Amino acid sequence: MLYQLPYGDIERFMEEDVPYGDMTTSLLGIGSQKGEIVFTSRDSTVLCCTEEAAKVFEQCGATVTCCLESGLKVEAGVTILAASGAAGSLHAGWKVALNLLEYASGIATRTRTIITLARKINPDITVLTTRKSFPGTKKVALKAIMAGGALPHRTGLSDSILVFKQHTAFMDGLEPFLGTVAMLKAKAPEHKIIVEAESAEEALKITAADVDVIQIDKLSPDELFILVKQIRQVNPKVKISAAGGINAENTAAYAATGVDILVLSSVYFGKPADIGVSLHP
Amino acid sequence: MLYQLPYGDIERFMEEDVPYGDMTTSLLGIGSQKGEIVFTSRDSTVLCCTEEAAKVFEQCGATVTCCLESGLKVEAGVTILAASGAAGSLHAGWKVALNLLEYASGIATRTRTIITLARKINPDITVLTTRKSFPGTKKVALKAIMAGGALPHRTGLSDSILVFKQHTAFMDGLEPFLGTVAMLKAKAPEHKIIVEAESAEEALKITAADVDVIQIDKLSPDELFILVKQIRQVNPKVKISAAGGINAENTAAYAATGVDILVLSSVYFGKPADIGVSLHP
Amino acid sequence: MLYQLPYGDIERFMEEDVPYGDMTTSLLGIGSQKGEIVFTSRDSTVLCCTEEAAKVFEQCGATVTCCLESGLKVEAGVTILAASGAAGSLHAGWKVALNLLEYASGIATRTRTIITLARKINPDITVLTTRKSFPGTKKVALKAIMAGGALPHRTGLSDSILVFKQHTAFMDGLEPFLGTVAMLKAKAPEHKIIVEAESAEEALKITAADVDVIQIDKLSPDELFILVKQIRQVNPKVKISAAGGINAENTAAYAATGVDILVLSSVYFGKPADIGVSLHP
Amino acid sequence: MLYQLPYGDIERFMEEDVPYGDMTTSLLGIGSQKGEIVFTSRDSTVLCCTEEAAKVFEQCGATVTCCLESGLKVEAGVTILAASGAAGSLHAGWKVALNLLEYASGIATRTRTIITLARKINPDITVLTTRKSFPGTKKVALKAIMAGGALPHRTGLSDSILVFKQHTAFMDGLEPFLGTVAMLKAKAPEHKIIVEAESAEEALKITAADVDVIQIDKLSPDELFILVKQIRQVNPKVKISAAGGINAENTAAYAATGVDILVLSSVYFGKPADIGVSLHP
Amino acid sequence: MLYQLPYGDIERFMEEDVPYGDMTTSLLGIGSQKGEIVFTSRDSTVLCCTEEAAKVFEQCGATVTCCLESGLKVEAGVTILAASGAAGSLHAGWKVALNLLEYASGIATRTRTIITLARKINPDITVLTTRKSFPGTKKVALKAIMAGGALPHRTGLSDSILVFKQHTAFMDGLEPFLGTVAMLKAKAPEHKIIVEAESAEEALKITAADVDVIQIDKLSPDELFILVKQIRQVNPKVKISAAGGINAENTAAYAATGVDILVLSSVYFGKPADIGVSLHP
Amino acid sequence: MLYQLPYGDIERFMEEDVPYGDMTTSLLGIGSQKGEIVFTSRDSTVLCCTEEAAKVFEQCGATVTCCLESGLKVEAGVTILAASGAAGSLHAGWKVALNLLEYASGIATRTRTIITLARKINPDITVLTTRKSFPGTKKVALKAIMAGGALPHRTGLSDSILVFKQHTAFMDGLEPFLGTVAMLKAKAPEHKIIVEAESAEEALKITAADVDVIQIDKLSPDELFILVKQIRQVNPKVKISAAGGINAENTAAYAATGVDILVLSSVYFGKPADIGVSLHP
Repeated sequence: MLYQLPYGDIERFMEEDVPYGDMTTSLLGIGSQKGEIVFTSRDSTVLCCTEEAAKVFEQCGATVTCCLESGLKVEAGVTILAASGAAGSLHAGWKVALNLLEYASGIATRTRTIITLARKINPDITVLTTRKSFPGTKKVALKAIMAGGALPHRTGLSDSILVFKQHTAFMDGLEPFLGTVAMLKAKAPEHKIIVEAESAEEALKITAADVDVIQIDKLSPDELFILVKQIRQVNPKVKISAAGGINAENTAAYAATGVDILVLSSVYFGKPADIGVSLHP
Repeated sequence: MLYQLPYGDIERFMEEDVPYGDMTTSLLGIGSQKGEIVFTSRDSTVLCCTEEAAKVFEQCGATVTCCLESGLKVEAGVTILAASGAAGSLHAGWKVALNLLEYASGIATRTRTIITLARKINPDITVLTTRKSFPGTKKVALKAIMAGGALPHRTGLSDSILVFKQHTAFMDGLEPFLGTVAMLKAKAPEHKIIVEAESAEEALKITAADVDVIQIDKLSPDELFILVKQIRQVNPKVKISAAGGINAENTAAYAATGVDILVLSSVYFGKPADIGVSLHP
Repeated sequence: MLYQLPYGDIERFMEEDVPYGDMTTSLLGIGSQKGEIVFTSRDSTVLCCTEEAAKVFEQCGATVTCCLESGLKVEAGVTILAASGAAGSLHAGWKVALNLLEYASGIATRTRTIITLARKINPDITVLTTRKSFPGTKKVALKAIMAGGALPHRTGLSDSILVFKQHTAFMDGLEPFLGTVAMLKAKAPEHKIIVEAESAEEALKITAADVDVIQIDKLSPDELFILVKQIRQVNPKVKISAAGGINAENTAAYAATGVDILVLSSVYFGKPADIGVSLHP
Repeated sequence: MLYQLPYGDIERFMEEDVPYGDMTTSLLGIGSQKGEIVFTSRDSTVLCCTEEAAKVFEQCGATVTCCLESGLKVEAGVTILAASGAAGSLHAGWKVALNLLEYASGIATRTRTIITLARKINPDITVLTTRKSFPGTKKVALKAIMAGGALPHRTGLSDSILVFKQHTAFMDGLEPFLGTVAMLKAKAPEHKIIVEAESAEEALKITAADVDVIQIDKLSPDELFILVKQIRQVNPKVKISAAGGINAENTAAYAATGVDILVLSSVYFGKPADIGVSLHP
Repeated sequence: MLYQLPYGDIERFMEEDVPYGDMTTSLLGIGSQKGEIVFTSRDSTVLCCTEEAAKVFEQCGATVTCCLESGLKVEAGVTILAASGAAGSLHAGWKVALNLLEYASGIATRTRTIITLARKINPDITVLTTRKSFPGTKKVALKAIMAGGALPHRTGLSDSILVFKQHTAFMDGLEPFLGTVAMLKAKAPEHKIIVEAESAEEALKITAADVDVIQIDKLSPDELFILVKQIRQVNPKVKISAAGGINAENTAAYAATGVDILVLSSVYFGKPADIGVSLHP
Repeated sequence: MLYQLPYGDIERFMEEDVPYGDMTTSLLGIGSQKGEIVFTSRDSTVLCCTEEAAKVFEQCGATVTCCLESGLKVEAGVTILAASGAAGSLHAGWKVALNLLEYASGIATRTRTIITLARKINPDITVLTTRKSFPGTKKVALKAIMAGGALPHRTGLSDSILVFKQHTAFMDGLEPFLGTVAMLKAKAPEHKIIVEAESAEEALKITAADVDVIQIDKLSPDELFILVKQIRQVNPKVKISAAGGINAENTAAYAATGVDILVLSSVYFGKPADIGVSLHP
């Protein structure tokens, strides 16, 4: 069971698209006729934001007659959402609901695809997503990656510790920072210490310090394969994550490197899912 | 000169990512050191939301020292935004600013690319974008397509008339609707009457009625090429727009069909622009 | 069927008037008694925001037992809205609901009156309203003018093209601007080009350019009558709109000038409709 | 010194009118030229919301060069606000600022007029305004009546005690309620007990109870003149207020009745002030 | 019957605590199981915000099966709120609902305790609360003190007149101010004039002026006892309030001084009420 | 360097207290006089929200002349914030700023006190705070505990894993849950697994499973002392935290038990800091 967006967000989405009603429907004088709207998958799709799309129609005064659950994978041709009511209500909600469904399901489907690819190679691998969602869309984006089966590796800057080169630059570099890891662990005993490495050399230095997770940025799968072995020898308990440019094309290769975690942003963008709409009396 | 997003939106973007400050910077105790952040294009990029990214750093208490204008096209290696201030301020704003820049500039760059491709074929063609932006991003998305050189074909449902099959379904079909066009024009004399056709046959019927714009959905360039000629013979003044699946790959082909307008959604999604960041003391 | 305001707006209206409950009802200790509230027209009235007034009572915990539709014209003495529930709920909602009804129905009624006056003279004339509504009231104001039978001539600056002297001042005046009309039409083929004239002389120059609509500001009906004839001779297809100071007193005179469109702001202000309230056990 | 509206409200007003920039200015390509905007009174006007109109231009990126203070009365022809900057900034702010100025100054001017008329007859009379402002405009409306010299008689339901027939209906009528006045005073010793009478008979009953203020609704000035004398004989210390339909036409007559207070709503609506705008390079 | 907080506030409380769902419940995979949550008083408690806690569960998709009314006093062991639904819904709402109940009921209970203590000594005494609630909590805090039986002595700065030394400092001190009281009363005939004294000497000067209420700050009960007698001799009609450091420990002593009103802030802070929760299948 | 609250929150705090200006200052006619406001510590105080209090005065139009940093500990008698400007500005901001300072500094001071007490006993102990802050105050509350030297143990439900009895109840109890810990660790390799025990017996079972942190609720210090030793023998690497009723009185006793972490809510409530204000011409 995934979380649902608050009504305030639903209203904000609607005000973006239909602040003063649908001019076309209104001029045509068809608003009060009764009709039905049906959303159908056109491809194999992992659904997301069906609940929110349903709320769009409720807010418009229509009655939702079918609503599959976010997270469900459907094949092409399945009715995923339907509502009935006045044509004016259905037209007002149509594209807001469709956009929500298509963008969110696109993210969910890409996420599921990548997880499936990765787990074929390594059934225990974990897929996490970064903070790089489109500004203003975090509630939709995180619901979608969870619907797809991933987890956010952090909800933002305030909840976790991830040390980048951009931090250590203020500490005279990586090595002085590594000297403070024990202190950091004492200060934040409920959080894991995650440190990003931008090269094999850095990664091995970080391994020697007792961090919880090494995040390795932008190494090729081949380089990473070798490095993972080296890290495991030095510190068999550290978790290793690969980040930087991971997508459906190279997921299998990265999964085969032996890392514990894939961290990626690519699922957040790309083509929305393709969902058909029938709106008729 | 493009519009700027209100401060309320900037604060909302920041609260998504950094509601209670940057835990890492805070634990490392580096927040008060002075530093600089510099954003640099890594590819040929049409910039967008540099002004908003600058506001992010101002809200964080940093000083913006360089900010190129939205809409400018830069080649790789150009400094597009820079700010200096406390490391805590720079870290708090870093990814919010970067995400804004990368998503918005991605849209702007894709838009500019398509316009350039289309105008090589037909220098007078107009490129417009649909309502299908990611829910919650309309202010960023429309700024970005304008930075790229396009215009929204409508800001939403409330400002324009675009008749779909889903409307005429409530009027016993296309033909009865076409009988009302004159009345519609009288009711809305300051708006153009735009009607979507889903086939050549429908398009010719619509042409016979005196509408302002025919939007033709999902015909192949070849079919469209023939149809445009037929339409021009019947009604040389109607504007013809092509919609449905237009993207960088097929833009030239669609531009060659002789239509006046390309209407597309594809610029809204796709890979964010790639922008490098240097953050250091 | 007109659009309905979002719940967020209803809550904002209530917080303006009753942020911490009704002190009087609370001190009198009558809040839990059951009662009924009935709103009755005192004059011939075009209703508006009955749906929103109903939502006010729902938010207060009362049950709506009668609610006529926005846009309906009623004579004096008709029950337009009724609710029953706890006296505390009814008192909390009373004036918020009444104010909404009276201001919105005042605008709707003035709009309908003007349309009726204008159409007696010219049955095909269109009545449009300007952007000059009270800041913060656009959603109520546009619903009300639509309930009265008008349309907004633009929802704001972002959706349409209306060229004022204040624009051409930056182009070395009207004539240089008129030289760019063809280019403007090519850039925005889905929008009409509307240009405001402040004199007959300007109007004739604009007519000679191929604009879609000439908006003529503040000419007297007599001057306008002559000008309209002159314009029609030069360009029989251009739409002509009259703007500036049009109200119920001079509507008939302006309608008799032969213009296609009346553009006015006067309906937005003036006396709220007079609606009686009975609130009792 | 009057209060100023928060920036959040200014942004909300702007988003109503110019959510995605000014399409006309943008298409004409004049946005970056430098210009000036000057607002000038066209009539004798009590200014209001000049500070907020100034903030509109600041938010648009223009520089305010003149801003007279809210509450000041100016004759025709006075520059009340001026700003300079990019044409795009000035066009974006023009109508939002003008609407704010005209609606608020209209209220302020009507308020000042009524106060002046009333005080000619009775220099000690107080003018208060009701809660009947347009929903969504309370911050503007109360600033405006204060700029005019009045005070709100209550900011809403939560801050004061005003007993209507609609309350006493739940207490078996006026007389049982009057039996509880002493208790009410004890419960709320920092608030005045104000009771509305709808007839002379009711007013005299209320006078006999020891309330602080009697508000007399909708009596004619002649009836009220007699009644005020009767009330003063019974209870020389009670404050008497007249309410219901008081406006500029009948203010003098009501002021001559001897009441202490005029309570009115009429200033909230009516024609906005007429303010001229010059916008040029 | 007390007021209820708007849904917008409920959503804001939830977004503070559970913006992207409950990670624990989600990882454990228990979200869809059916369960029940029951809140039980652990001490004698005056309830507050049960209605809002119920709304929390409704927003989460659970069904409220029991909800006692705000303002009710219950002994230990009473079920005050219960809901059933999916474990995911119950876990999402649990702590938001509990925090609301505990903070609000803590305030309500402390308020009731103080009122009871004060009325044992002086059955006619009034207890009012200041503006010193935690920023951002006014709607909860005022509901809670009303649930406890008190009233706010002002909802904020905009609704009442309370003159502090910090005001008279701008009038050359207390005495020049006292010379303006008559004028102040004429300007604001519907409001009481309340003036704070910081010493017996000041209080007697204020008594001599004809103010409505003297608020005496931070005198000891013994000093105040003497002062109240002196004030009553000079002006038997003025209301006297004691303010400054009044809490459950010294309430009885202050009530015994003979003042009419106790004004206090202490109820706003202190330990939340202790409410037990059972959440199970 | 701590985070600062967004301007939107500052405006919301001000609208709570001073929505339509300060009636008293306005009626006294002193608003335009120049004055100064100075805030001074009356006790040893750890400051918090000085930056936000400064923003309050900036929003009111005053100039901040002194502002010590949040997190600084000052003794009694230190000027912590000062502003100068119009009396109307200073009065509008006075209590909003003071309330922010006093509530936030109260939390910060209590937090620092507890940390100091705990570290005297165990210099390496960590103090974390729960989610139990007053609904609507999280941004102030978390800033304050950080100013005091603590960290939040979670920002909410969405960022961390903390398993309560209320979760395991849906898994047939603690033991079946403990069987899933390895799987849970694999699913969330970047998060620690924290499990709450309500008895020594439960704690030892949890210790046997390989969790990261055991949170032990409501054991007495004596019981806990024994239990910690037992846990360390079984699993020397697990972190142990004590929760439930920890406050300044018992902190030393709990610190002496040997736990690694104290988790507490008590700092969120209690008396606000005492800060003196001088406001004068």
